[in-house]
Amino acid sequence: MAAGRHENEDGPAGPVDLRRSPHAKLRPLGLHDAAITGGFLADRQGLNRERLIPEGHERLEEAGNFHDLRVAAGREEGEFRGLVFMDSDVHKWLEAVGWELAREPSDTLAALADDVIGLLEAAQEDDGYLNSYYQVVAPRPRFTNLSWDHELYCAGHLIQAAVAHARARGDERLLGVARRLADHIDERFGDGGDRDGPPGHPEIETALVELARLTGEPRYRERAQYFVDVRGRRELPDARFGSGYFQDRVPVREAAEVEGHCVRALYLAAGVVDLHLETGEAELLAAMERWWADMAGRKAYLTGGLGAHHTDEAFGDPYELPPDRCYGETCAAIASVQWNWRMLLATGEARYADLLECTLYNGFLAGLALDGGGYSYVNPLQVRESHRDTGERGALRHPWYACACCPPNVMRLLASLGHYLATSDDSGLQVHQYATSRLRAGDIAVQVETDYPWSGRVVLEVTDAPADEWTLALRIPAWSAGARVTVAGEDAPVEHTGYVRIRRTWEAGEKVVLELPLDPRIVAPHPRIDAVRGQVAIERGPLVYCLEGVDLPDEVSLDDVRIDRDVPLGDAPQEDLLGGVVTVRLEGEHVPPDGWPGEWPYQDAAGGADGGRGPVQLAAVPYALWGNRGEGTMRVWVPAR
Amino acid sequence: MAAGRHENEDGPAGPVDLRRSPHAKLRPLGLHDAAITGGFLADRQGLNRERLIPEGHERLEEAGNFHDLRVAAGREEGEFRGLVFMDSDVHKWLEAVGWELAREPSDTLAALADDVIGLLEAAQEDDGYLNSYYQVVAPRPRFTNLSWDHELYCAGHLIQAAVAHARARGDERLLGVARRLADHIDERFGDGGDRDGPPGHPEIETALVELARLTGEPRYRERAQYFVDVRGRRELPDARFGSGYFQDRVPVREAAEVEGHCVRALYLAAGVVDLHLETGEAELLAAMERWWADMAGRKAYLTGGLGAHHTDEAFGDPYELPPDRCYGETCAAIASVQWNWRMLLATGEARYADLLECTLYNGFLAGLALDGGGYSYVNPLQVRESHRDTGERGALRHPWYACACCPPNVMRLLASLGHYLATSDDSGLQVHQYATSRLRAGDIAVQVETDYPWSGRVVLEVTDAPADEWTLALRIPAWSAGARVTVAGEDAPVEHTGYVRIRRTWEAGEKVVLELPLDPRIVAPHPRIDAVRGQVAIERGPLVYCLEGVDLPDEVSLDDVRIDRDVPLGDAPQEDLLGGVVTVRLEGEHVPPDGWPGEWPYQDAAGGADGGRGPVQLAAVPYALWGNRGEGTMRVWVPAR
Repeated sequence: MAAGRHENEDGPAGPVDLRRSPHAKLRPLGLHDAAITGGFLADRQGLNRERLIPEGHERLEEAGNFHDLRVAAGREEGEFRGLVFMDSDVHKWLEAVGWELAREPSDTLAALADDVIGLLEAAQEDDGYLNSYYQVVAPRPRFTNLSWDHELYCAGHLIQAAVAHARARGDERLLGVARRLADHIDERFGDGGDRDGPPGHPEIETALVELARLTGEPRYRERAQYFVDVRGRRELPDARFGSGYFQDRVPVREAAEVEGHCVRALYLAAGVVDLHLETGEAELLAAMERWWADMAGRKAYLTGGLGAHHTDEAFGDPYELPPDRCYGETCAAIASVQWNWRMLLATGEARYADLLECTLYNGFLAGLALDGGGYSYVNPLQVRESHRDTGERGALRHPWYACACCPPNVMRLLASLGHYLATSDDSGLQVHQYATSRLRAGDIAVQVETDYPWSGRVVLEVTDAPADEWTLALRIPAWSAGARVTVAGEDAPVEHTGYVRIRRTWEAGEKVVLELPLDPRIVAPHPRIDAVRGQVAIERGPLVYCLEGVDLPDEVSLDDVRIDRDVPLGDAPQEDLLGGVVTVRLEGEHVPPDGWPGEWPYQDAAGGADGGRGPVQLAAVPYALWGNRGEGTMRVWVPAR
Repeated sequence: MAAGRHENEDGPAGPVDLRRSPHAKLRPLGLHDAAITGGFLADRQGLNRERLIPEGHERLEEAGNFHDLRVAAGREEGEFRGLVFMDSDVHKWLEAVGWELAREPSDTLAALADDVIGLLEAAQEDDGYLNSYYQVVAPRPRFTNLSWDHELYCAGHLIQAAVAHARARGDERLLGVARRLADHIDERFGDGGDRDGPPGHPEIETALVELARLTGEPRYRERAQYFVDVRGRRELPDARFGSGYFQDRVPVREAAEVEGHCVRALYLAAGVVDLHLETGEAELLAAMERWWADMAGRKAYLTGGLGAHHTDEAFGDPYELPPDRCYGETCAAIASVQWNWRMLLATGEARYADLLECTLYNGFLAGLALDGGGYSYVNPLQVRESHRDTGERGALRHPWYACACCPPNVMRLLASLGHYLATSDDSGLQVHQYATSRLRAGDIAVQVETDYPWSGRVVLEVTDAPADEWTLALRIPAWSAGARVTVAGEDAPVEHTGYVRIRRTWEAGEKVVLELPLDPRIVAPHPRIDAVRGQVAIERGPLVYCLEGVDLPDEVSLDDVRIDRDVPLGDAPQEDLLGGVVTVRLEGEHVPPDGWPGEWPYQDAAGGADGGRGPVQLAAVPYALWGNRGEGTMRVWVPAR
C-alpha cells in the first residue's frame, strides 16, 4: 500500500506506525516529523533526559534488575531479586532511551543502552526464551502460570523497546533478541503449539502488532489475534479477584463494559484497536467504543485518573469514584494515553484527543515530582490532614518502587510525547495537542508557538506547503467555550468543540492564531457520583486545579473550606511558585464543625449547626503539581455552599 | 477479695470474670445468671445452636481444619491445607460450643466438642507447643515470624475456648492443653526467655488475662502485660502496610488514635482494658479512651461497622467513611462488642453500651444470613446496580470462607450473648441491653419481657430482692428521646440519656415499665464525612434502616432516589417480610439523571439539570437483614433533596 498523500513514506515511525494500515482514519506523523521544542511539556522532556533516564539506570542497578539478567546470562552468581516482572522495568527504560535518542542523539545514553542490550543478548536462551525470573528461579515449566507470572507481559515490553531502537536509531540488535523471543512464543502459542490461553497481564498484544508492522511478518499479528480471541472464557486459573480482574470474564467482542485491573484492561484495549487497524474488524472497534463510553462516562476521574479500588488496582462499579481512595495509577494514565491515541487514529473523533489531553496534563503528570526526584504510584484527588503514608502505595512520591512499573513508564511516554501531537490524512494535517513544536506531514510543515497550558493562544505558522489545497484541522477542546481562530488575520468559523477545519491553498509563512479562552471554571459531578456529591472542582484550560493545605492559614483545615458554585474566579501568573504557574484565586468560607452536637458523628438531621464562619482567601494550584511543597493536605473536590 | 454485695461468689463466670478485679466499676453477671429467653436475639441464638454450630463442624472438616490437626497429631497423612491460622477457626468454634453448652446442655454438641478436644490433646507436642501449621509445614523455627504467622493469635483463641469449657461445663481437659501451651509461651517470652516482641495479630493479651483470672496464676497476666508493653517500637518486620497496621507504630500508652487493621486493633484494645481492670494502671485506660473517642467520633460507620479500607482491612483517616467500600468486617464488629463491653465494665459509662448496642444490631447481625445459610465477611453500607461479587471479600454472604475467621466468631458471640446484657455493682443491677431475659445478681433477680427492637416497651419484673434498698439502673439509649419509666405504676424521672437509676426497697413482683419511643428518625452525617455529604439515613430504635432495590419499581434505580430531610416517616409491622420486621414508610422522589449534558460526567456547575421527577413510595428495611432476598442494590445513605 502506498503512503498517504501527506506522508513521509520512508522515514522512521514513532511508537505506532500506520502507514500500511488500511483501516486508520488518521496516521501518526513520522518519528522525526513531530517534535516538542519548547514550553511546559518540553521542560518535562528535558527533565526526563537529564535526570529521570540516567537515574533510572542507577535505580535498576540498585534494585537488582540488571543483576537478575546478569545471573540469567551466567555473568554473575546470586539469587533472583525483586518481583517476577523485573525485566519489564529494564525493557521500558530501554524503550525510553530509544525514543530519547531519536529526539536528540547522546553517546552517553546510547552507551548505557548498548550495554543493557548486550546483556539481554547474553541472557537469551538458544531457543529464544528470555525472562530472568524463569531462567534464575525456574519455579515451574515456562508459560504454565499465565495468570500471574508475567512472561508474556515482559516479552511485550521487550518487543516495544526493540521497535524503539530499530526505528529511533536503526539499531536492530535488540530487534533480533525480540524476534527470537517472539518466534519462540509463536511456536508455543501458534497453531501447532501447546496453546493455553491468554496472559494474565495483557501487553504483548499491542507489541506483537507493532512488531508485525515493523517487520512485515503477519505471524506476529496472528499471535496477537490469538491472545485476544482466547480471552474471556474464564479459564485463567487462580482468579483471586475474579476473572474480570484479568478481563477474562467475557470475550472481548461481547464485553459491555470495561472492568478489572486498569492497566491490564487498557494495554489490552490498545492491542485490540491495533488489531482493528490492521484487520478492519468492526466488532473489535465496536467493543472498544463500548469500553470507552463506560470508562469515560462512568469510571474516570476528573483528572483522567483510573481505578477506584486499591485492593485490585481496578475499575470500580459505575460512578464509584472516591476522591480519597482514587488509585489513579500512573501506569493506568499512560495506558489510557496509548489507548485513546489508537482510538483517535481509528475514528478521527476529537473526544479521544480530549481525554488524552485531560489524562496527560492531570492524571499522568501528577505522577512525577516537579524536580524529577520522585514518582507516585497512586494519584488520589484528596489527601486528608491525618494522612500517613502506608507504604509505597500511599500518595507520596518516591524515588523508586519495589514494584517499579510506573517510573520507566513515565520515561517512555515523556520521550515519545511528540508522537501524540498531530496526525495526517489525505486531507492534510490535524493538530490534536498544543505545544511549541514543529510538525511535518509529507510536504506540509507547521511550526507551533504557544505558552499552553498557561496561555490559550496558539500560533501556527505554515512553513512548508504543497501547491494545492489542504486542510489544517485544529482541535477545539471539549472544555473550551468561545474559541476564536484567525487565518492570515481573518476570522474563521469555529465549531464549539471537535475540530475546526481550515481548507485552503496555503503559502509558507501564513499564520493561524487559535485563541482558547482560559477563564477558570467550576465544574460539578454527575449526580450518581455519590463520593463527591455536593462538591465542585476548579479547572482552567486543560488543567484540573486543587487546593493544598500549605496555602491556607494555619487555623483553617482544608476539610472545613466551602465555596460557592458561582464564586468569582480570578487567575494570576506566579513565576516564583512551582516553577511558574497560573493560580486560580477565589474567596471561600471557613466553616469549622464546632457546632456538632455530641461525639457520635451521626445526628438528627435537624441538628448539626456549623460553627463560626468566616471568609478565607484561596489560591488553587494545578493538580499535576500538588505535593511538591512537603507533605500536606489536598483536595480537588471542595464542598459547595 | 470478697465478692460484691450483689454477686454470686461461687457460680461460674462468663467470658469476662471480674469478681476479683479491684478496678472494675461494673461486674458481669454469672454465667447462669443472664439468659436471653425469647425474642429477636433468642431467635438468633436458636439458629446458632440448631444450624450454625453443627454446620460449622462440617465446614471445618471440609475446609481441612481438622485434617491439619490430625496430621499434626500423627493420625493422618497429608499436606497442610488452608491458611496459617486454620487452628483458630477450630478454637473459636470450640469456644462457641462451650458457651452454648452452658445455655443448655446437649450430648450431641458435647460429643462433637470432646472429639475435637481429644484431637487437640493428641496434636499438642510434649513441650506444650500446639499449632498445626508450624507442626506440619515447619516453615521456620517457632515464633520467628511474629508479624505474620499467627502462632500467638491461635494460642489466644485456644485459651479462650479452654476458659469457656472450664466455666461452662467444668471440663478442664482443654484447659490443660491451654495451660501447657501458655506455659510454653511464658517460658519463651518470659523474663528468662528469648523475647522478641509482640505478635503481629493481637488476641493472646485478652486471653492470657482471662486465663490468669480463671487459674489465679499471675504469670499469664504478666505475659499479657509484656506483649502490650513491647508493642509500638516499629520492630515488627515486614510491615508491608506500615507499622500502624499492627498497632506497632506508637507505644500503646502514647497512642493518640486508633489505627491499622481493625480486628488487630480491637482485640488488642480488649486486652489492654483487661490489664487495666487487673492492675488499675490509669495510663492504659486513658489511652483506650483516646482510641475510643477517635473511633467512635471519626472512624465508625453508622452501623458500628469498622474499617474503611479493603486493602489492609484497616481504619481509614478520620472521617474517611465511604459507604460502598465500607469494609465493616464482621469480626471487627465482634471485637468492638468485646472492647466496648470491657470499657463499660471499667468506667460504667453508657456510651460504651450505646455503641455495643449499635454494633450488635447492625454491623454484627448483618454478617449473618436470616436463615443462617451464609456469613458476610465485608458489610458495606451501599451496593450499586452493577455490583459483581469479586471473590469472598465481596458483599455477598457465603456459607464459609477460605479465610473463615468470621463464621465461628459469629457463633461464639451468639452463644455468649447473654453475658453482655447486664452487670452488677454494690448498688445493685444495671441493665444495658434489652431482651426478653432473666437476670440475677446475687440476691437480686429480674425478669425482662420485651419485643425489642421492634417495640420500645420493656417490662422488668423484680422476682427476687434483698430486704434493703438497691438500685435498678436502666440504660436510656443515646438515640432515644422521650423515654418514660413507670415503677410499680408510678412515673419515675428520666434523664435524656445514660442511666435512669431507681433506688428503693423492692419487693418481689414489682414491675418497672420502660417505654422507649421508636419513632423512625432521619439522621445526617458529620460535615467532614465527605463520602456521604448531602445524604441522610433512616433509623428506628437501635436499628439502622436501608433501602433495597428489590422494594423499588422496576423503572426506578436506587441511585436515583432522593428524600427530604423532613419527610414524614411511618412504620408498619410486616409479619410476612424477613421473618417479621417493622418497615419504615416514606415518600421519596425519583430523579433520573436524563438531563445530564454530554458523556463526560463532569460539567459546568451551572449545567446538569435533572430529568423528569416523580414520587416513589419507599419501604426501608433493617440493615441487619439486607441481602436476604437475592442479589440486588442497597443503600443506607440516601441523597437528600
